[in-house]
This record gives sequence, C-alpha cells and structure tokens, in this order.
Amino acid sequence: MSLSTPAGYHALDERTVLDFLDGVPDLRARLGGSPESWAVQEVGDGNLNMVFLVDGPDGSLCVKQSLPYVRAAGESWPLPLDRAFYEQAYYRAVGPHVEGLTPHFYYYEPALYALVMEKLSPHIILRRGLIEGRRYPDVARHVGDYAARACFATSDFGLTIEEKAELNATFARNTSLIRITAEVVFTDPLSTSPRNRWTSPELDDLARTFRADSALKATVADWGWRFLTNGEALIHGDLHSGSVMVTETDTRVMDPEFSFVGPIGFDVGAFIANLVMNFFAQPGHASASDDRRAQADWVLDQVPVFWDAFESRFLSLLETGSRGDVYTAGLFTSPADQQALATQRRAILDKIFGDAVAYAGVKTIRRILGFAHNADFERITDHAKRAPLETKSIQLARRFLLEPESFRTAADIVAAARAI
Amino acid sequence: MSLSTPAGYHALDERTVLDFLDGVPDLRARLGGSPESWAVQEVGDGNLNMVFLVDGPDGSLCVKQSLPYVRAAGESWPLPLDRAFYEQAYYRAVGPHVEGLTPHFYYYEPALYALVMEKLSPHIILRRGLIEGRRYPDVARHVGDYAARACFATSDFGLTIEEKAELNATFARNTSLIRITAEVVFTDPLSTSPRNRWTSPELDDLARTFRADSALKATVADWGWRFLTNGEALIHGDLHSGSVMVTETDTRVMDPEFSFVGPIGFDVGAFIANLVMNFFAQPGHASASDDRRAQADWVLDQVPVFWDAFESRFLSLLETGSRGDVYTAGLFTSPADQQALATQRRAILDKIFGDAVAYAGVKTIRRILGFAHNADFERITDHAKRAPLETKSIQLARRFLLEPESFRTAADIVAAARAI
Repeated sequence: MSLSTPAGYHALDERTVLDFLDGVPDLRARLGGSPESWAVQEVGDGNLNMVFLVDGPDGSLCVKQSLPYVRAAGESWPLPLDRAFYEQAYYRAVGPHVEGLTPHFYYYEPALYALVMEKLSPHIILRRGLIEGRRYPDVARHVGDYAARACFATSDFGLTIEEKAELNATFARNTSLIRITAEVVFTDPLSTSPRNRWTSPELDDLARTFRADSALKATVADWGWRFLTNGEALIHGDLHSGSVMVTETDTRVMDPEFSFVGPIGFDVGAFIANLVMNFFAQPGHASASDDRRAQADWVLDQVPVFWDAFESRFLSLLETGSRGDVYTAGLFTSPADQQALATQRRAILDKIFGDAVAYAGVKTIRRILGFAHNADFERITDHAKRAPLETKSIQLARRFLLEPESFRTAADIVAAARAI
Repeated sequence: MSLSTPAGYHALDERTVLDFLDGVPDLRARLGGSPESWAVQEVGDGNLNMVFLVDGPDGSLCVKQSLPYVRAAGESWPLPLDRAFYEQAYYRAVGPHVEGLTPHFYYYEPALYALVMEKLSPHIILRRGLIEGRRYPDVARHVGDYAARACFATSDFGLTIEEKAELNATFARNTSLIRITAEVVFTDPLSTSPRNRWTSPELDDLARTFRADSALKATVADWGWRFLTNGEALIHGDLHSGSVMVTETDTRVMDPEFSFVGPIGFDVGAFIANLVMNFFAQPGHASASDDRRAQADWVLDQVPVFWDAFESRFLSLLETGSRGDVYTAGLFTSPADQQALATQRRAILDKIFGDAVAYAGVKTIRRILGFAHNADFERITDHAKRAPLETKSIQLARRFLLEPESFRTAADIVAAARAI
C-alpha cells in the first residue's frame, strides 16, 4: 500500500477478511463453524471498494471495505477511507424507515472502514438484469416507495429541527464523495477534462457541440449549485440501477456512500435517468430471437410506475406522517386550510419532479460524455450501434435541462423518449 | 440561578465582569490601569443576553454573555447558552470579508459563553436613529455591501466544498436559535399561540382574518421549509435595523447569534422589511414641527439604495471573486459562454431578490402579530394612531407573499408602499 492510511487499517484480502470476521463473535456466530469452513470470494466490480462474500455452514455475510483510492482509476486518484462511515451512517438512519428495502446491516468496524451486511442471494444487479432483457414486476414500485420513505423520513417533514441538524452536521463532512459528484457529474462532462471519455470517434462532434453549448452549461452549473445548497433530506446520492439488487420479488437498495443532505429530486432523477438510458440501449442488445422492442417498452413504462409509487407514498406520508417543524398542524385547522395545504403538498411534489427531470438530464450527460459510463451502453461493443443510441439518450437529456416546461409528468418523459 | 448551567458558568454582573476582564491579560491591557479604575454599565436591551460596556483609562470593551433563558420572556423560556459560541464563530468566519462593517472581535470565553468586542461609541442602534428622525447617508449602502460580502464569502461561490462543509457542520447545531426563528417567525404569528400579541383591540379583526387566510398560511409554511433547507450561505439570521449600530459615517452589523447556513434572501429581506416598517411608522412619530413626511420618503428610498448596493457588490464578487466549486471557470471559456454566464448570474440575483421579498413579508407579519415587536411601531403609544400604520404595513407584507410577480425590483416595493 503506497498511500498512507490510518493506524489499524489494512486492505483486507480473501484470507485476512476471515480473521476479521472470526474476531467478531456475532459475525462468527452468523456464519457458524470456524474460518476453515468458510468460503470467500472478492466480487467488488464497482468503482470504489473491496467487496467480499463469505459463506459459512449456518449463514452468509457481505463485507464491504473502503480502499484509499478510486478502484476504477487506481492509486493515482486517492480517496479518503471515511466513505464507509457515511455508508453505515446512512443505513442506520434510513434502514428503520424503508421496510426491508435495504440489505440488513450487521456491523461496522471503524478501524478497517469495513461494513458487514447481509449477503444478498440470489439477487443480481438490476442494471445487469435489465441489460439481459429480464423484467422485474415490482422493482420500479419498490424503488419509488423506497426513495419516498427514505427521503421523507430524513426531511424536515419527518424530523424535528434538532434531528435534522444531526444529519446535516454528520453528513456535511462526506466531502470527498460530494466533491466527486460535483466534479464528475456537474463540471467535467461539459468541460475539457482528462477524465472524460465517450464513444469515439462517433461522438466526437456531439461531445464538441455539447461542450460549446453555453445555455446548457449555464443550466447544468446552476443545478450543480442547487445540488450543493438544497438540503431537503438525507439522499442516497447515487440511486442508479447499479445500486439496486433484485430477484423476481425482492428489491434492495445499496451503496449509499455518496449520501448527504441534498435535494430529493437528485435521487428520483438518478433512477429515472437510468431507466431511460436502459430504454434507449435496448436495441443494442437485440438478438436474432429478440429485437428487444417489448423489453424497451416495458423498461420505459417503469418510469411512471416509479414516479407514481414515489409520489403516492410521499404524499401519503405528508398527509399522515409529518412530525417535523414545517407545515405544522396548528397552522391548518379549517377545511379551507386543508384545501390550501393539499395544494401546497402537490406543489412540493411538483418541485421534486421538476428537480428530478433536470438531475436526470445531468446524470445522463455525465454517463455518455464523462468519467463513469453505464454498462447499458458500454456492453454494446459495436460503436456503430452504440453511438446513435447514446445520441438519442443525450439529446433527450438536453431537452430535460433546456425545456423543463415540456416535462410536467412522467407520461411526458415516456412520450418524449418514444418520439425520438 | 434556578436553571441548571454547566460547571464554570455564572451569569456576570457589574462586579464580576471586572474580575473576568482582569483575568485576561490582553483585555486588561486594552482597558489600561486596574479594575478599580474601570467604569461598567449593563445595557442589554435586546431579547436574549447580558451586555456590559466597560471603560478604562486606555480603552473600552463590550462584553456580551448568554443567559440560560430568553431575557425578554424570563426563566419560563429556557434557552441553551451555546448561542454565544455561534455568534463568535460567525464573527470569525465573516469578519475578514466585510471590511470593518462588524465590531472588532477580541476574545471568547467558552466557560462563560461570553464574547468580548469593541465598544462602539458614539454609535446608536439604527432603529432608534430612524425612529428619532435621523438620517444616515451611508447606512443602506453599507449594509447592502455588508450582506453581499458576508453571504458571498460564505457561499459555494466563495468557498470550496470542504470549507463550506465546515460551516454547514458547525452551524447546523445552532438549533436553539434556528428553532426560535422557525417558531416565532414562520409558525406562531398565523397560528393561535400564547406568545402572540398585537395592538388590541384595534387589530383583533385583522389578526383573526390573517389567521384564517389559508393561502397566506400555506405560503408562509412553504417559506419556512425553504428557510430550513436552502443552505446558500452563512447568513446573519436576524439582520434588522436593531442589529445595526451607526454614526453619521460608520456602520456596524452585530448580534449574529441566529446565524446558520441558510437562504441569502432571508438576510436581505429582513433589512428591507425593517426599512419598510419604519417608513410606515413615521407618521406615528410626527410632531408639531415635523410631520415626518420627508423622513418617511428618505427611509423608503433606502430600500433601492440597499438592494442596489447588495446587488452590485454580489455581482461583482461573482464576476471577480469566485473560487468555489460551482460555476467553475473551466466551463465558461467562449464569448457565448460568458454571455450565458452573465445571464445566469442575473438569475441568481433575481432569485435572491424574490426570496427577499417573501421573507420580508414573513418578517413583517411576525413583528405585528407575533412575539417580538418593533420599537418603530411600539413607541407609538396611541393605539388609534399605531393600528392603521401597522395595518398598512402588514397588508403590503401579505402582498409580498401572495403577489410575488408584482415585486420584481426594489422600485416595485417603493411604489407599492407609497401607493398604500
């Protein structure tokens, strides 16, 4: 390890992870037997961390550990270890409110910056499933419900001023990952940055045109400011289809290390963007036996399913679950008050939707012109196939940002995506 | 002291404050001589604290100490002492950026929750001066310049993500004063609360009408949510004319204990509201020799002077002083980019102005129907005179909130106030 790390930290490997688990009685008991009988596999394929799956005679576990650099970039891009702290803090804050829609969280070892959680099996990453042409009848509804519950519970509607202040104070310091988002989502993709890449040479002209689009850049910069200042709730911060594990019937949201107190629409928009990108990518995964048209239609139809689930849950929580210091009940007593309050609640949801459309635009652009790309497009190895699909997706993203008045409902998004 | 306080804390009096100062070499040296030669006077006439002015042979000091309750309400309304910590933290954060527009800050004693600052002399409170019919040719420009400098320097334009995070994390916990604002500004005045009072019986009907105004309450509640979530800058939090000390040529902003990372428009709106209230109050201070019409006109004209100073300073800092992680320079390189950036900067100022109008409305309503009233109106002892002036003021405040499209510029505010 050439990067300096705090005393007590060492990057786990498939051997030392067993020693670590053996040293924690509760974890050892969950696995059963002794380390010699435990099977371990390192499976981290994300951008940042080590992930070990461990099976014992009585049970299984997942260990996720921070590395002192961005795994996808190597040691040349150092990254503080403390993101594991924020990930476990998010699970602790949100877990009780989301009805089993996150993995069970068991243990956090501060010295190792390692979390131990439920090993999800036979779950796979939602993105992979969608790319492979699978359908998950409940996933959009589940994730919509999740986002509504998680954001509501950690907002000023669900928390007192003092409780929200604790989240603000704690997560404000998750600056290394907040900085990554600010840079790779809001700044780099429309700038000249060595971290950017795109399908080249096919999209060279498009990338140049986007980098010269002054109105688009000013708008994206403005959303970057709002991202940093609009502290509505403890948000997941990276709620794309790669952060969701699924089976036919079960859905779990994971990887909340980017969490901080930010705009609710950022989570909502991230999921919408990833559904829409997968919709556009589907023809690239067609085979002789499946043109993927039905799959594409199904994926796109999940946008309103997701939003409707989010909206109805958030509205119902506003109506029945508010316990914070905003919109306090004592202000609204008469039937006319209730009417005005209902109108205002609609306005809150409309605000979140408007934000989500814009953030969906930003998140799409960064996946096509920026550092981290989506497998949805990347797995289409033929550039001649991939480039026109990415072009459709990014042109819709541009409209999300520059024509917000055209996207008032989830149905507007579906119609616009189909029309391209 | 019947309320429990931390070890080491005792409420200072005119004798023990001298012992405290005597024990700090730097402060003793500033006063010169020995405690026997020091003159002391307790002058706290605000709502919350003890304030001692101390004069020695070589110099003078001001000591401000937190009490464990709201001074204006008595021990029945306990209040944590830590507001003194936030006050000194604000001075430290903002002082270097505001070119002498705050008192010089000398010392903070954590155990006593006591700040030691410059004694301002012969300054008086701006509100008092305005009520007495005095004019301060520079004050509106100074306070506008102050608000722009202080807010810019502590915003994402003036700070890196990491620096802003430190302010977020520190000031998030100023919850006792954030709660007071949330309650007495955004909730109580339009609810039934034992803390409310108004000019009675003259305004009984008006208070009832306002409490039944569903649209107004929904709007005020929404601004209360924005107040808690819109973390644009470290704001003063209580920037009314009672927080400004003046001479003919010098202006100092003080009492930042309500500071937290919030919406810039809240500071801007507070000062506008207090100018407009003073304008409406002027006829109530008329005498045989001075009908106060010229004074009223002068006060109202300070609204655009204040806003223009704020706007031009904030714009010029955006253009030349940005060093944060938003609107980064690398995004805007071509002449067309610069044009788009200029448009967006105007939009930022328009956003702050729109927020300020709404917060001015909220802050006015609370001064006429809520807990803490303004001397501007209170010193008009004849209810028959006072009530119609308060009525004019609060009706304009209601329009600020319900007809925002009518108030696009500071001139719109002046015209509407004159037309009432």
